[in-house]
Amino acid sequence: MSDDPRAGALEIGERLSQSPSARLVALAFSEELDGQMGLAEMVGWVDLAHTLCLADAGVIPQAPARELIGALLDLQRAGAFEPRPEFGDLYTNREAWLTRKTAAAGWLGVARARREALTTAYHLKVCGAICDLCDALGVAIEALSAVSLRHKDSVMPDYTYLQAAQPTTFGHYVQSFAWPLLRDSDRSIELYARMNQCPAGIGSANGSVITQDRRAIARRLGFTAPVRHARDAMWMHDLAIEACAIAVSVCVNLSRLAEDLMIFASAEFGFVRLADRHSRASKIMPQKRNPFALAFARATANRLLGVQAGVAAAGRTPSGQMDNRLYAYGAIPEALRAAGEAALLVAECVDDLEFNQKRALQALEDRAVCAADLAERLTAEAKIDYRRAHGAVGRLVANLEAQGRTLADATPEDLGAALRSAGAGEEVINTADILACALDVTGCVGARKDVGCASPKEVAAMAEELSRAARERRGQIAQRRADRKAAIDALFAEARSFAGDAR
Amino acid sequence: MSDDPRAGALEIGERLSQSPSARLVALAFSEELDGQMGLAEMVGWVDLAHTLCLADAGVIPQAPARELIGALLDLQRAGAFEPRPEFGDLYTNREAWLTRKTAAAGWLGVARARREALTTAYHLKVCGAICDLCDALGVAIEALSAVSLRHKDSVMPDYTYLQAAQPTTFGHYVQSFAWPLLRDSDRSIELYARMNQCPAGIGSANGSVITQDRRAIARRLGFTAPVRHARDAMWMHDLAIEACAIAVSVCVNLSRLAEDLMIFASAEFGFVRLADRHSRASKIMPQKRNPFALAFARATANRLLGVQAGVAAAGRTPSGQMDNRLYAYGAIPEALRAAGEAALLVAECVDDLEFNQKRALQALEDRAVCAADLAERLTAEAKIDYRRAHGAVGRLVANLEAQGRTLADATPEDLGAALRSAGAGEEVINTADILACALDVTGCVGARKDVGCASPKEVAAMAEELSRAARERRGQIAQRRADRKAAIDALFAEARSFAGDAR
Amino acid sequence: MSDDPRAGALEIGERLSQSPSARLVALAFSEELDGQMGLAEMVGWVDLAHTLCLADAGVIPQAPARELIGALLDLQRAGAFEPRPEFGDLYTNREAWLTRKTAAAGWLGVARARREALTTAYHLKVCGAICDLCDALGVAIEALSAVSLRHKDSVMPDYTYLQAAQPTTFGHYVQSFAWPLLRDSDRSIELYARMNQCPAGIGSANGSVITQDRRAIARRLGFTAPVRHARDAMWMHDLAIEACAIAVSVCVNLSRLAEDLMIFASAEFGFVRLADRHSRASKIMPQKRNPFALAFARATANRLLGVQAGVAAAGRTPSGQMDNRLYAYGAIPEALRAAGEAALLVAECVDDLEFNQKRALQALEDRAVCAADLAERLTAEAKIDYRRAHGAVGRLVANLEAQGRTLADATPEDLGAALRSAGAGEEVINTADILACALDVTGCVGARKDVGCASPKEVAAMAEELSRAARERRGQIAQRRADRKAAIDALFAEARSFAGDAR
Amino acid sequence: MSDDPRAGALEIGERLSQSPSARLVALAFSEELDGQMGLAEMVGWVDLAHTLCLADAGVIPQAPARELIGALLDLQRAGAFEPRPEFGDLYTNREAWLTRKTAAAGWLGVARARREALTTAYHLKVCGAICDLCDALGVAIEALSAVSLRHKDSVMPDYTYLQAAQPTTFGHYVQSFAWPLLRDSDRSIELYARMNQCPAGIGSANGSVITQDRRAIARRLGFTAPVRHARDAMWMHDLAIEACAIAVSVCVNLSRLAEDLMIFASAEFGFVRLADRHSRASKIMPQKRNPFALAFARATANRLLGVQAGVAAAGRTPSGQMDNRLYAYGAIPEALRAAGEAALLVAECVDDLEFNQKRALQALEDRAVCAADLAERLTAEAKIDYRRAHGAVGRLVANLEAQGRTLADATPEDLGAALRSAGAGEEVINTADILACALDVTGCVGARKDVGCASPKEVAAMAEELSRAARERRGQIAQRRADRKAAIDALFAEARSFAGDAR
Repeated sequence: MSDDPRAGALEIGERLSQSPSARLVALAFSEELDGQMGLAEMVGWVDLAHTLCLADAGVIPQAPARELIGALLDLQRAGAFEPRPEFGDLYTNREAWLTRKTAAAGWLGVARARREALTTAYHLKVCGAICDLCDALGVAIEALSAVSLRHKDSVMPDYTYLQAAQPTTFGHYVQSFAWPLLRDSDRSIELYARMNQCPAGIGSANGSVITQDRRAIARRLGFTAPVRHARDAMWMHDLAIEACAIAVSVCVNLSRLAEDLMIFASAEFGFVRLADRHSRASKIMPQKRNPFALAFARATANRLLGVQAGVAAAGRTPSGQMDNRLYAYGAIPEALRAAGEAALLVAECVDDLEFNQKRALQALEDRAVCAADLAERLTAEAKIDYRRAHGAVGRLVANLEAQGRTLADATPEDLGAALRSAGAGEEVINTADILACALDVTGCVGARKDVGCASPKEVAAMAEELSRAARERRGQIAQRRADRKAAIDALFAEARSFAGDAR
Repeated sequence: MSDDPRAGALEIGERLSQSPSARLVALAFSEELDGQMGLAEMVGWVDLAHTLCLADAGVIPQAPARELIGALLDLQRAGAFEPRPEFGDLYTNREAWLTRKTAAAGWLGVARARREALTTAYHLKVCGAICDLCDALGVAIEALSAVSLRHKDSVMPDYTYLQAAQPTTFGHYVQSFAWPLLRDSDRSIELYARMNQCPAGIGSANGSVITQDRRAIARRLGFTAPVRHARDAMWMHDLAIEACAIAVSVCVNLSRLAEDLMIFASAEFGFVRLADRHSRASKIMPQKRNPFALAFARATANRLLGVQAGVAAAGRTPSGQMDNRLYAYGAIPEALRAAGEAALLVAECVDDLEFNQKRALQALEDRAVCAADLAERLTAEAKIDYRRAHGAVGRLVANLEAQGRTLADATPEDLGAALRSAGAGEEVINTADILACALDVTGCVGARKDVGCASPKEVAAMAEELSRAARERRGQIAQRRADRKAAIDALFAEARSFAGDAR
Repeated sequence: MSDDPRAGALEIGERLSQSPSARLVALAFSEELDGQMGLAEMVGWVDLAHTLCLADAGVIPQAPARELIGALLDLQRAGAFEPRPEFGDLYTNREAWLTRKTAAAGWLGVARARREALTTAYHLKVCGAICDLCDALGVAIEALSAVSLRHKDSVMPDYTYLQAAQPTTFGHYVQSFAWPLLRDSDRSIELYARMNQCPAGIGSANGSVITQDRRAIARRLGFTAPVRHARDAMWMHDLAIEACAIAVSVCVNLSRLAEDLMIFASAEFGFVRLADRHSRASKIMPQKRNPFALAFARATANRLLGVQAGVAAAGRTPSGQMDNRLYAYGAIPEALRAAGEAALLVAECVDDLEFNQKRALQALEDRAVCAADLAERLTAEAKIDYRRAHGAVGRLVANLEAQGRTLADATPEDLGAALRSAGAGEEVINTADILACALDVTGCVGARKDVGCASPKEVAAMAEELSRAARERRGQIAQRRADRKAAIDALFAEARSFAGDAR
Repeated sequence: MSDDPRAGALEIGERLSQSPSARLVALAFSEELDGQMGLAEMVGWVDLAHTLCLADAGVIPQAPARELIGALLDLQRAGAFEPRPEFGDLYTNREAWLTRKTAAAGWLGVARARREALTTAYHLKVCGAICDLCDALGVAIEALSAVSLRHKDSVMPDYTYLQAAQPTTFGHYVQSFAWPLLRDSDRSIELYARMNQCPAGIGSANGSVITQDRRAIARRLGFTAPVRHARDAMWMHDLAIEACAIAVSVCVNLSRLAEDLMIFASAEFGFVRLADRHSRASKIMPQKRNPFALAFARATANRLLGVQAGVAAAGRTPSGQMDNRLYAYGAIPEALRAAGEAALLVAECVDDLEFNQKRALQALEDRAVCAADLAERLTAEAKIDYRRAHGAVGRLVANLEAQGRTLADATPEDLGAALRSAGAGEEVINTADILACALDVTGCVGARKDVGCASPKEVAAMAEELSRAARERRGQIAQRRADRKAAIDALFAEARSFAGDAR
């Protein structure tokens, strides 16, 4: 064995006769290490649990086990540990550090591929990232829910194709983005259950002659159980695909809201005004307040859908290939983090924005948005079929438009003429009343009382359900965090006690 | 209203003054219609349920309701219904057909956007596609499980980076691809629960003045409940993202197995021989048997990861945009179908292939694959740390290689020399016994007894669990199918009775 | 050899002992055949050229060569040729058809993999698709150029982040989408040069003992040369990646324009009104005119970016894999076609839309859009630095806003006060003149005279350049089409003469 | 104006009343700044050129122009400039630094959006990255070409579907990956021509009342011309899509080679042995030498195809949106860099690997690979059609296989029997000679003499062409580098002279 600690870490002089090429180090080792840095703390947990298990089993003798655990505890505290690509990946960097501390470091790798240590740390890391995402989603859901309640009476047009469709409220509108986030919370909790299983204790991928007691190591790390099949445990690319899909789902939903709000924030719509603290000034145009925060949310959605494609493609190799994991170590926790942060940022924007009721009323002024309500009332009152009612109102709108008038200006006579031309007698109905009802925007919204519809009462009921559901999910996550914390605290206590480490 | 039925369907002469441009029809309407064709049957269900609900509520008078339902029942039976892009989308094509049958067709669209009818049909369609996928996964899991049992004693090397790693069995290996499929079954069932909620009854997106009783229509169609928030119900792009991720997850896993098997089927590996019925001959090279079925499975993974990217991007627009849905109607059911079919095809290939134990033994002949087992035994017996044991064996392998020998040729003396050069005394241990044990491949595999590892007993236990779990999921799916069938049967019975239709 | 023609086509009873599994046929053969159907005509050309070359070289004797060429000419005419997946791919279907005609069909496959025939046909097909795309781009460029000329004086705000930025014209705005299409034309022509090389004549992938004269077959098919390296010729996945990128580039640009126009077509902006023939009515809302054509263009961009990801992933396999090609045969021509059609559709929409100058002027009414012009004039006239000028105008805008006024209402006194508060003396300059100039929108636009800027004269000059450039590219494409047509006409003439076929 | 330099940079207290939210800074500003850091040097060039042009035009008075240019030169030298997200993006960070140096910093932003400065820097950055990529491709092409020459006589099987197809050489095989890289070089040079145009001088996006002389600024920065249309100049998302496609094209090709080499490096194939300096040892398995460098190349392809999808999606927004650019600033130069580095790494691996002729001969030993050669010779000599010849050899192979023999063991009698059973008389031909020729692998390869085929002479000729072509492209790139360097040197000389800066 060479004296160069790098040689030891990389097996140069043992299995390999040459040091890695400078390009391999600068390019590949360096990128790999960057991606793994987020796992550093968790690899420490895994090393402790692994060592304790093997000491328990008598595989590692007591004396070196004590020394090794002591050194691992030191490493966990070491602020100064700075991995360098010349030493390879995170695992070999840690090993090199430990080897400088104690000869007992030689016991660390027994019956375990470095991939196992890193994969187990990755499961722990992603579990943590899911909890963070769930909390962020919870905050965002509650913010959207509160805003929806605040604006349950704030009428505005709902749009399809950016054409005013029917009257609604800003509250009903904005709440529609909270429900998908609740489903994403559920997806996250389901993913957590699949992720919170322990891959450790499996040799390279199918076990080893040294029994490591997979159940014990799983328990020590706070996992619910070992992953059932050892070789499956090592790869599980489906978890990465699932995690990406959740991050993309969150961000696409946020992007839709952000994109709407950018349109609503234009001077031409003018429905909302973003807070200055979410805007950016222009260096050239003194009048501008650019909705930078919203554009950023959209950008995140685009970036993450690319990550999703890359992660899926990364799994499409023969099995047993390290590059399936290479990308995932860094990219998956980062994607979950980015999705959660984007949710918090958009929620902050929504919470802070001003809704301009006056402008929204202007957009309703021509009452085009009430055309379907009018047709429906004609159907109900005049007992004509919807096709004819729709045709009559369509013609009424077109006639008014041709005269430079709008539905808001329609008279009972206009309506009568349109009805007649649709072959429906107007005599049986009170066109004046129907028109008045149909053009009363607040009344139209209030009449939407069916499950989930826009009436203020229904919006309020849904807001309460949403908040309750969000709190309930956050409670579940808090329990999972607490379970992990208890396990890790116990692990450290056991390790310190075993090593006689009083710190 | 023009006499041209196309004009009626497309509102030409009412809201619009021009027929759609020839290019719009040939390009956009045609592609849209293609994507919707799979929904045809389910739109019929939705129209029946919608009409019955509105008749119940007194919105549609009894006489036209009866006529309309009669016509809808006829349409459901009509073999000859051939939608054409000139009539627009599936909905307007159906409307044109119905209008030719009865004037009561005018009552069909009351309080409902065409998008609502199609979206509800899409939920029903995807629910069915999920059931089909789950069944296919169940069949594939059971096939892989059975093959794993059949080959629980068939030793071969396991590979990482296509370098032989440790000894395993074909049974343990092949089963590792079944467990991800089981997780995909779970994901599918979770998606089903989110998908099996009814978007119907919401006007354009936030309700209408005509109360439609969303609970009643949901119940009539066999959904568990209405989607809670009406505007959310209309778009739910997260469901499309989730469905794609499951299809990709399934196919990436299959692709990994397929790609391994293509390598194992090469003459150089020779571990497996694909059945002729999954192979293809070459038109130029008479000796060839090309694993076409496996290449196809890989191609499906690639195609679907592209669909996933396209579907995610399709959601990244302002909200309330039809193109979010345009792609999904056809692409999502198709992706789920393709994933299920690929699972069945790969399962068929695996079930039919011959494993060549002789060739697998040849690959184990040099016993390189036993090097870690040897090092682990040295650690256990000689009580030297793994770093030193690993170094000793690494040097032993390198020395033998330099002499043109392999680990299989190693003598106790070779091992002793390697131990000494690693600074470990060999006197305390029985090198001959250790060597014999470590190089006994079957023994090495049998010793892997921890949870999920490669010992035949453990593989058998896992195979049984797998089959049980697969059967249990298929039972759940069968129940969901039965529930839907019961609801739809009841819907038709009610419709026939209402319409006085004796057929 | 079995009597079943399928057996002959698929080598059952020769190399293979079993017919393909029903699932393989229904799933894989069927999807493969669908993807190849667009190549049918070109495979015929390739077969003719191949057969003539081998007859020339004396490899195929004259008599069967004549018979085979006669049958190939018949097949080319045969309306009734309907390939079926049971016969395998397009090539084997053709072979089966020919075999039923003449025993000379046995000479077709000499020294050639079916992949070679299909790959060569694919090059021909894609060359044609590039020509079609280029023509479509040319039409679209000329349409946009003409519209830009028509509206070179139609002032409106330019937007960033959908916030009004500076004054421009609809002409300058809309022309900005034509220039990327011109670059896409250039890319297409560059791709054509790479694609218009002949892969034929290479045995499986590295030649055969039967010299086929690759130059002669290339010449007969109108290619500029054989692809230089035979194995490279067979795969060339880079061409598929390049083609996808062009299709995506075209569609993303169109999608940006389409998305802007959807916003401009909203009632709140009201700048443009789409023709009815590009709109769609709503089945529920009688007032709606939905910009369906624009939404479709956006949908195409999303779909194609997914195809791009799938095609890239499809290349990421070991080399020499058929699935690299499987997807490309159908997907690449389709992507190019879809991009060209989308360009024509959007161009049609732009050509037909009405620009509403009155609404655009309303959007300019508050003159916010002139703030930077004002600051620039202050810099120029008052010789204060831009930071201070920008600050002064920024404060002016904010002060006016606070008073419910806008920049349009600013008086020389307001400006003077703002200048003073920015530490700049207003006495040296004529604030009234500066204000008048800066708030004259038409004057502001007219002053933008630098290369490529918004002044009507510059827009007109660019429009002319654009049209000239577009015509020039179309001329190049016309030449390429003519070259191919001449070669193929000559090929058929030679074939007919060789076969003694007088038709 | 507040005293806080951050307020100045971000216009707080002017247009905006609030500082950016902590989350906006930590998340969005920070990610934006990271992406822009690679542009720092080039933004300096742009600022110098912009300031000189405006001083020339008399817009900036001489004294502050001198001071500003002096400060810009200082900033360009300042090692200690560390941008911080609190100050916003790179541009506003620079402005804050300059403002602390001199009041003349206020003149920097005249008639220019920050986006213009950054976009122009981005064009310069990408031009540089394209040059680096082209050089890397040139090195890689020459390495592959040299290896192909070295191994032009090293026979081995060529594979399709990983089934041995026909005999070839390692030289012909490996060279097939160089030709796509040559096409990527061409694509890069074509992209360079489109990228090497100057977006500067356009106000926000359509010009300004202050004429800046776009031609002069383009010339000062070494661009060939201004981008023709000012608004187009600002966005040009097509360039990002094109750049990604080149990076993906490069990496997919490398990944194919890498994946082949991983298979060829398996013990079962054993054709190549990767150098130790491109391998990685295992921490658990002492015998392993894992081809880490190759796996990394594949991982890069996957990562970049995701970036491509994200970049394409990022362009699919309304136009005039900053997030189109946000991602591109960092991602595009990084993708080009990653592709070039991957090319160098793979080239290094190929250059260093050992080809094992003995193992390649073993793979040819059964002569299955000669079956098509045999069939072709039968066609040529016995004048039977290829279908029959193919059938005869197919049966011969199958019969031998059934007897546990291979084509290598075939006797003239075996061949005769197969011919007879195919209905072809063997009497007219010399089966012994045909068999001997067909099974002579070296002879078979040598006979492949057509353009681009595997004969050593043809491989050598192509290698020379390749090298010449690669050198020629590198010459073109060297010229472009020199042109830029001359322009930038002149720019600095002019700036120093203008500022009276003697350093």
